[in-house]
Amino acid sequence: MINIGIIGLGTVGGGVYEIINKRLSEIELRVGSPLRIKKVCDLREEFAEELNIPKGIFTTDYNEVVDDSDISLVVMLTGNADLDFTILKKCFEQGKHIVTANKALMAKKWSEIFELCRRYKTLIYFEASVGSGIPVIQGINEGLAANRIDQIKGILNGTTNYILSKMEEEGTSLEDATADAVKAGFAEVDSSADLKGWDAAHKLCILTNMVFPHPVKLEDIYCEGIENIELSDMDFALEMFGFSLKLLAVFKRKGDEAEVRVHPAFVPEEDMLAGVFDENNGILVSGDSVKDVMFYGKGAGRFPAASAVVSDIIYLAQKISYSIAGKIPYIHTDTSSNTRVIDMEELSFQYYLRFMTEDKPGVLSKITGILGAENISILSCFQKGRAEGGNIPIITLTHMASVRAVRRALKKIDALDTTG
Amino acid sequence: MINIGIIGLGTVGGGVYEIINKRLSEIELRVGSPLRIKKVCDLREEFAEELNIPKGIFTTDYNEVVDDSDISLVVMLTGNADLDFTILKKCFEQGKHIVTANKALMAKKWSEIFELCRRYKTLIYFEASVGSGIPVIQGINEGLAANRIDQIKGILNGTTNYILSKMEEEGTSLEDATADAVKAGFAEVDSSADLKGWDAAHKLCILTNMVFPHPVKLEDIYCEGIENIELSDMDFALEMFGFSLKLLAVFKRKGDEAEVRVHPAFVPEEDMLAGVFDENNGILVSGDSVKDVMFYGKGAGRFPAASAVVSDIIYLAQKISYSIAGKIPYIHTDTSSNTRVIDMEELSFQYYLRFMTEDKPGVLSKITGILGAENISILSCFQKGRAEGGNIPIITLTHMASVRAVRRALKKIDALDTTG
Repeated sequence: MINIGIIGLGTVGGGVYEIINKRLSEIELRVGSPLRIKKVCDLREEFAEELNIPKGIFTTDYNEVVDDSDISLVVMLTGNADLDFTILKKCFEQGKHIVTANKALMAKKWSEIFELCRRYKTLIYFEASVGSGIPVIQGINEGLAANRIDQIKGILNGTTNYILSKMEEEGTSLEDATADAVKAGFAEVDSSADLKGWDAAHKLCILTNMVFPHPVKLEDIYCEGIENIELSDMDFALEMFGFSLKLLAVFKRKGDEAEVRVHPAFVPEEDMLAGVFDENNGILVSGDSVKDVMFYGKGAGRFPAASAVVSDIIYLAQKISYSIAGKIPYIHTDTSSNTRVIDMEELSFQYYLRFMTEDKPGVLSKITGILGAENISILSCFQKGRAEGGNIPIITLTHMASVRAVRRALKKIDALDTTG
Repeated sequence: MINIGIIGLGTVGGGVYEIINKRLSEIELRVGSPLRIKKVCDLREEFAEELNIPKGIFTTDYNEVVDDSDISLVVMLTGNADLDFTILKKCFEQGKHIVTANKALMAKKWSEIFELCRRYKTLIYFEASVGSGIPVIQGINEGLAANRIDQIKGILNGTTNYILSKMEEEGTSLEDATADAVKAGFAEVDSSADLKGWDAAHKLCILTNMVFPHPVKLEDIYCEGIENIELSDMDFALEMFGFSLKLLAVFKRKGDEAEVRVHPAFVPEEDMLAGVFDENNGILVSGDSVKDVMFYGKGAGRFPAASAVVSDIIYLAQKISYSIAGKIPYIHTDTSSNTRVIDMEELSFQYYLRFMTEDKPGVLSKITGILGAENISILSCFQKGRAEGGNIPIITLTHMASVRAVRRALKKIDALDTTG
């Protein structure tokens, strides 16, 4: 008999409780042993009622789960990284294994968590922390185990993808599309963690640590959000080139070094990621043998996330049931190599630059002059529309240009009194 | 020490040998034990030389692999279903576990194979049999284990998808596109198994048996290929509706019954499968909790397929190394339920029908009369072009119409002396 405890009965936790009860016999068949939810914990007692949780197994004190010696697997879904880390340490000390959906916990405490796993011979599964129900963690870790993963390019945040889709498809402004996302339940009222790219950066941090032998921290990841995107930028790229604007999270291996970055980027039509719309996620993974493989699906929601958690429970419980949980690590990374994350300033990209300028003679010449002085070669340059008295946009597409040079140029151009 | 044997050194087998040698230390880390290729077998001795296989481990007699009591895992890649089944039985009798890429073997012998697995407590992994390197078998079986799988809709054959893509993108005829596919290495010289949909049907048979508790045989699957597709059909649907023509393999659960079918179908632009071009595969899987998840990647090729085989080897070897291989089945299906495959004639679809007719008065009326008499309601009807003296196409889109009625109507229409 495998006894499990659930801490946290919010959106995901409630879904997990429901799925386990609905499909218990199939789950036990796969686990190879009977399974029972022995204790369920949440501070919000009303959840116990809503889910018809028997009085005897509900508690508001998580220590009742952690200290129950019958429980070998704890499903940790409080959503609070600090609290979850405290619970995790207590569980691991007692040899309990963990399933979690907490991306902040995994991203911030990666090295410490796997150090504890080694020390206590415990396992942590975290499929739901990236891409919700999409089995991308397991896909990379097991399905593509034969490969050296060279690149991961993903749309990892459903909220911003929903917003960008609305803007592209319906011509909605960023503000209206964001309000729309809140109404549709795809964004929190405070959606800044999504808009600023932090949520995607957390997920990228997890994926990168799975495949790259350098312990990558959140602060190593270049992160730029979509807060400053305007509708005109999207329209322009779509009309001119058929490009879609997406918030991309990119890991790219270059020998012992890697680019790890989150930022908006134009994606050509023929790229599979260009077809990922609305609240969906898409993760393109390239291995040295398999080449490109894409995983796609809903990036959020009660049951998709709970699907990932329950699948983790099944395969972790199976290991517990056969007494091999913790004998072999779930995630294998050798952190001994001489690796590093490449500083963003060392990279080069093709840039799309929009300058809002006064409609005065000489402005274009000043701007292109500064770009030229920084060795930034211009592929095309457009001046679009003309608002009486207002500022007009000058749009520039560059050839490959160094980030350092572009940043220097933008600083100088910002200092001109003709651009806003 | 895990000793493995490889039988079959063709495209995939050679790739497997290369990947294992290239990544042995990473593989051993994941297996949790040293691993060695103890014997390699092929009738073509020149392959041993090409791959620099040491003399001592190469043999042309597969019994030397099967009868080696040190070998616990046999990688079976002869490509011959009958031979592989003979080898499989010998291996299982001796408690050896198997990794294979043989889709014909898995599709034709599914029930017998898993009966043998139960009897001998052995395992067979077969990730490479569907979607090559795309981890879809493991994704469904483990990553989506919490779900009841309700639908699988896939582009499972890279050859036909390459051909259809060339036709759609370049306006090539079926014949030229097929010749192109042969030249590009995406089709055999005799590509009838691909064109007729048989290859896709084998793969669908495997996927269906993984998720549906009725032992589905190849002959239960309705199978229609792309041999009769003309360029004009694709152009028409693309121009009029933005639809792409794809060879789809579909499993659809309806309570205890299921549709299991392979046929060309128009896919709307917003469907992720419409974006799957060239030799790629895409498999859209719908679970009751996770909803739609798509797996995408190259559907063929030496290293993509070898990637899947080696990933299977890793996780099977891990089970052997911890002495749990065979204690719990890899695939779980309960075949006791009262289930069945729905006969194609009981289904209804929206039909695209093209009639080549003589340009004579009354033909359209006769055709639509027959359709009407069979209760087939017409959504739109077009008569396109007009070849002097030749036949002209009449194109009809129907509302949902029963397959039985459409077949009856087509028989009657074929009997008219005005259509060809």
